[in-house]
Amino acid sequence: MTVNFNDIEAAAELINGVVKQTPIVSSRLLNQWLGHEILFKAECLQTTGAFKLRGATNFVRKHLTKAKTLPSKIIANSSGNHAQAVAYTGAKAKIPVSIYASNTISPIKAAATKHYGAALHLFDNRVMADDAIADEARADKQCIWIPPFNHPDIIAGQGTAAFEALHQCTDIDAVFVPCGGGGLSAGTLIATRQLAPKAQVIAAEPLAANDAAQSLREGKIVSLKATPITLADGAATPSVGDLTFGFLQQLDDLVEVDEDTIIYWTQWLHHLLKLHIEPTCAMTMHATTSWLASQRTPKRVLVVLSGGNISTQTMQKVWKKDYLTRIPTLHA
Amino acid sequence: MTVNFNDIEAAAELINGVVKQTPIVSSRLLNQWLGHEILFKAECLQTTGAFKLRGATNFVRKHLTKAKTLPSKIIANSSGNHAQAVAYTGAKAKIPVSIYASNTISPIKAAATKHYGAALHLFDNRVMADDAIADEARADKQCIWIPPFNHPDIIAGQGTAAFEALHQCTDIDAVFVPCGGGGLSAGTLIATRQLAPKAQVIAAEPLAANDAAQSLREGKIVSLKATPITLADGAATPSVGDLTFGFLQQLDDLVEVDEDTIIYWTQWLHHLLKLHIEPTCAMTMHATTSWLASQRTPKRVLVVLSGGNISTQTMQKVWKKDYLTRIPTLHA
Repeated sequence: MTVNFNDIEAAAELINGVVKQTPIVSSRLLNQWLGHEILFKAECLQTTGAFKLRGATNFVRKHLTKAKTLPSKIIANSSGNHAQAVAYTGAKAKIPVSIYASNTISPIKAAATKHYGAALHLFDNRVMADDAIADEARADKQCIWIPPFNHPDIIAGQGTAAFEALHQCTDIDAVFVPCGGGGLSAGTLIATRQLAPKAQVIAAEPLAANDAAQSLREGKIVSLKATPITLADGAATPSVGDLTFGFLQQLDDLVEVDEDTIIYWTQWLHHLLKLHIEPTCAMTMHATTSWLASQRTPKRVLVVLSGGNISTQTMQKVWKKDYLTRIPTLHA
Repeated sequence: MTVNFNDIEAAAELINGVVKQTPIVSSRLLNQWLGHEILFKAECLQTTGAFKLRGATNFVRKHLTKAKTLPSKIIANSSGNHAQAVAYTGAKAKIPVSIYASNTISPIKAAATKHYGAALHLFDNRVMADDAIADEARADKQCIWIPPFNHPDIIAGQGTAAFEALHQCTDIDAVFVPCGGGGLSAGTLIATRQLAPKAQVIAAEPLAANDAAQSLREGKIVSLKATPITLADGAATPSVGDLTFGFLQQLDDLVEVDEDTIIYWTQWLHHLLKLHIEPTCAMTMHATTSWLASQRTPKRVLVVLSGGNISTQTMQKVWKKDYLTRIPTLHA
């Protein structure tokens, strides 16, 4: 099983009508301060508030084009944006949805998931949720289980964000994405290699959840033992998948970002772009400025803002200290 | 001196090229919950982060079309979005700018004002800043003083936000705006009476800075004695002007909003629209839901989101408690 550019092109076609074309935004001030042009793909403005809808919709629509009968239900294990995306996708396709999550799911994501009509099953921890969904999948052969990242149809779906962005803007020198399980990174890599073959593709990961960086260093998938504690909760996945790992190995770089820097960029992107964006995508700005600092000529880069679903508790942590007193530079 | 629809039409022409056409956004979830269609004019995405650029640009451009010589400089007294708007406008017109403000100006607004190249003069309080600018205006007859709201060119400029919005969407039953000095309210009233004559025009004001509501009740302008303490700092003006007051008297309603309700809607609009918006404009949602609650049939209304410049201190206050656990309804 693999995934290539044709799959992304097909996905873009298939998800059309459910998934929005999100805008490209920028900040004149930021560009002036950094001396480069940064274009942001605002997937926080996607329906359900994150790019995850792309993969989930592609998965379900592709399944339905091949299936002879409608599935009994759709199931997914996620405490994050994938849960909402699957819930929404199921509702659109009029198929019942069950979500399996640990009870640490943020109240706002739980509420949205239930709002879209999904049944939400909560467990004491992630492992128990994963076991329960595996049991469910075994018990009901007519259900479809939508994985969060490690599947060709998910990767192809997530790749449509960069695919779309690279049709919205030209002459991009580098593309930056956050890395959790690696689905968005893999899809972005495939789309960019085809549409902007000279562009670098660089991912960012929280230092506190750096399983992908460890995996790349060791040449094999490393799984975090403890539950990572990071404000970039969309990238707190304990390990990447075998399929996504192969693509992560082809990235031009993967940058680890500490929590203070994640908060710094979350505050600044809120302020400069006037968008409500998750720490997970703000994190990507550190990889962006690090790369730009090594460039001798002005560059135009694309940054994928992956989502905008933030709990009150996270907002409190983000705004605890004032980082807006220190203006962004390339050498902060 | 008065102002009419032709002035707004002329202003829209004059500010074209400096001022952006901001998008109309909406939330499917919110519309579903409330049973009405709410369209938001996203002036938080305006250059300098607020609608204030419209009035300041119109004022300066109109002055320059009539003036025989360039002014020596532009001066303004403001601790808010007007300061940034004037600083930006002056920079665009290559005229030096001096801003007079009390030292309670938010650090982020001070930084932006200085970034646009303006000289920032800080005083212990607002009265001292106002006295100093009056002295400056007397001393330098070649300078132009841009008032924040009580002037036909400012009102006409601010009116272009609703003017533009009412060309972007049709069949609007009511328009809602925040009220500070009354410039935006007045301009919105004039634009709406012409373009959507059947629509209601309703303003919102913080209960803690309810000088406009007091003024309307007493039939004369009431000035607040103490500096109002409200999170809706864009509407903390101590009194409206004689010109704006005449228009405020023609509003269909003016609703006073308590601080808890202002915070509630700030959190929810951040979450639902994924926009970084000031408490001042979130406040308007209370007037909106109050009006909608009295309607027997589904309505389509326009809400002007006036700006998105928020200090870290304000963000801390906004996110101190969790209001996202209580879903918006018309009868909250």
